[in-house]
Formats: sequence, C-alpha cells, structure tokens
Amino acid sequence: MKIIETRTAPNPRRVRIFLAEKGITVAYEQRDLMAGELKDAAFTALNPLQRVPVLILDDGTAISESVAICRYFEEAEPVPPLFGTGPVGRAQVEMWQRRAELGLWLAVAQAFRHLHPKMAHLEVPQVAAWGEANKLKALEMMTMLDVQLRGNQFLAGDQYSIADITALVAIDYLKPAKIALPEGLEGLKRWHAEVSARPSAAA
Amino acid sequence: MKIIETRTAPNPRRVRIFLAEKGITVAYEQRDLMAGELKDAAFTALNPLQRVPVLILDDGTAISESVAICRYFEEAEPVPPLFGTGPVGRAQVEMWQRRAELGLWLAVAQAFRHLHPKMAHLEVPQVAAWGEANKLKALEMMTMLDVQLRGNQFLAGDQYSIADITALVAIDYLKPAKIALPEGLEGLKRWHAEVSARPSAAA
Repeated sequence: MKIIETRTAPNPRRVRIFLAEKGITVAYEQRDLMAGELKDAAFTALNPLQRVPVLILDDGTAISESVAICRYFEEAEPVPPLFGTGPVGRAQVEMWQRRAELGLWLAVAQAFRHLHPKMAHLEVPQVAAWGEANKLKALEMMTMLDVQLRGNQFLAGDQYSIADITALVAIDYLKPAKIALPEGLEGLKRWHAEVSARPSAAA
Repeated sequence: MKIIETRTAPNPRRVRIFLAEKGITVAYEQRDLMAGELKDAAFTALNPLQRVPVLILDDGTAISESVAICRYFEEAEPVPPLFGTGPVGRAQVEMWQRRAELGLWLAVAQAFRHLHPKMAHLEVPQVAAWGEANKLKALEMMTMLDVQLRGNQFLAGDQYSIADITALVAIDYLKPAKIALPEGLEGLKRWHAEVSARPSAAA
C-alpha cells in the first residue's frame, strides 16, 4: 500500500492529518504536480482527473479523492472515529464536512486558482471575477463556522472529525489565496489555535 | 420526523430517490425557494445556508446537506446499502459520488446559476464567463463517466449507489442549464436509460 501525493499541495495534507489522528503509517511517493508529473499516461490511468492524492492498495486498486481515501481508513480502522458515531453523529459530521469543503475550502481554492498567475496553466480559463467572488464567499462561510465554534469545541460538536481537518487546511490556505482573516471571529480563532496545536497538524 | 424541501428543486430530488430506493417513507413539507421562503428567520435557524432539503428529527435536530441526510438513513437502515459495502466498496462509492457531485453536478449547477436570468437574485454576482466555463467542465466529466459506464453497470461498479443518484439528477438538469448531451457517450446513455427506468427516478 502507498499514497502518491505532492507534499506541498493542500489536499494531500488532509489525508496526512487524518492518518496521523488515526495513528496509521503509510508509505508516500512524491509527484510534482506543478512540473506536470500528474499528466503522464501512467498516472492518468490511476486517476483520470490527474490529481493527488491517490491511494494504491496492495492489489493495485486505486482510490482517489481525499475524503474517499479517508473513508477507506475509517472503515478499515474505525477507532478513533473521525466520521462520527451513530446515524445522527455520522450525519452531523457529513453536514459539517460538506459545509467546510463546499462552503469554505472550495471558495478558498477557487480564489487561489482563478487569481494566482502560477495557476494559469492548470485552471483554464482563469476567471478573475469568479476568484474575487469567492473571497467574499469564504468570508461569509468563516462567519458561519465562527458561530458554530463559539458554542462547540469542534465543528461537529465535542469530537474532532474530518470536518475540522478540511476547515483547518482551508484556513491555512487563506494566505496563498491572499484572503485576510478578518477581525473578530473569536470562536474560529480559538478553534484554529487548538487544532493547529495537535501533533497531526504538522503531518 | 419530516423533510422540508422544494419539490421542483434538484437537490431534494436526490434525497427522494435515495429514500425510494431504501423503501423509506417520510413526511414532506414544502417551501418555495424562488419566492424567498428559505430566507425567513425560522428557516435560517434550521439551516443558516438557507437551502433545502433539511431533515428534522423527532427531537428537533436539523440535518441539512442532501448527502448528510442520505447518510443518516444509510446508517439507520443499512439495507439495501447505497454507500457501498466494506472499506474498499465504501471508498469507491465515495470516490464516484464525489466525481459525480464535484465534477458533474457542481458544473451543471454553476452553468445554470451563473447564466439563467431568474437566478440573478440568488447567485450574486452572476459571472457569465464562469457559467460558460462550467459547460465545458460538465462535458469533460460526462466523457469520463462514459468511460466508466462502458465497463460497469453502475458508476461504482455492479451495485446501484448514491453516486448514480447524484449523476442522474445532474444529467436531468442539463436541460435547464442549456447544456446539450453530446453525440456518442453510449455508456452514459445506456446507464441513464436504466437508472431512469427504476421506479425511484419518479420519486
């Protein structure tokens, strides 16, 4: 088993944090996405979307999409649970994971991809007005997450989950995306300091 | 227990198809999203994103996000499994569900939201160039799904899953989004005819 990734890219970091929280060690193989190393035929056969990370199982099965890779490990080694427990708990984690991903992470990533000159060859066409619109969407979602984090230790309640991982990676990507973290948002900032202090954040 | 939805909107349809496949009956309550009925304080307290569907449990717990609602019912009533079985099966369904949602459904929805005049008050700002770019993204993803469906009965393999539901709703939304289904794509069209013929498709 191995994971093919680009160490500096944000989505592979989500999987590394997840595995660190689980206490699972996996071999990594590096490909440089900015150098076009995801576009060759061998890698495209593993993931036609030409994106990292990809998990390769011992029988050769290739699983791509960060959350799908995390799901594999959750099902294979359920403790500690990072996708929630029970029907309501698992639904609440899914809800907050989707809010963190579709609402915040996607907005931050779109701002980066549509505004940063070095992404011009990967995001075709770049639409600057869409990048700018996403800066506002990211700010709106941060305000919503802040409300939740004023009343809860973690996004989905009192247990750390994959929703926190997605939101952490998104917040740490505000800087490359040139989005300033606003004044206030004390709940979000308290939470960010706590999840950043966990050893997994450095994985 | 009840589900608050807008009958004509595409995301609530995903949940209705899912429940029909499970054989689960739930009471529905209608709100007209185009008439602004998701913007009042009572509904915003249930889902601050002001979107349908929302599942209300008997204790008042509100679960929003279509896939999170489906996840609740999958965990509460696991048979038939619609999120896959076992670590590899559940990871593969998650991977194809994400490709169907982030790759196809999101592209179709963005094309609709950024180009249709009646969405101007819901998608602010509308960015026409982004809407057009998503038409191409949708076509690229349809080609990728077609390759998978030439070799498999369903998106995630030989079992119908939530990935098929997401892709079905997306394909059926090509018309409102004014995206023409291209010539060819015989695998995709064979699959679409089959999943459309299931009684759940009319739910």
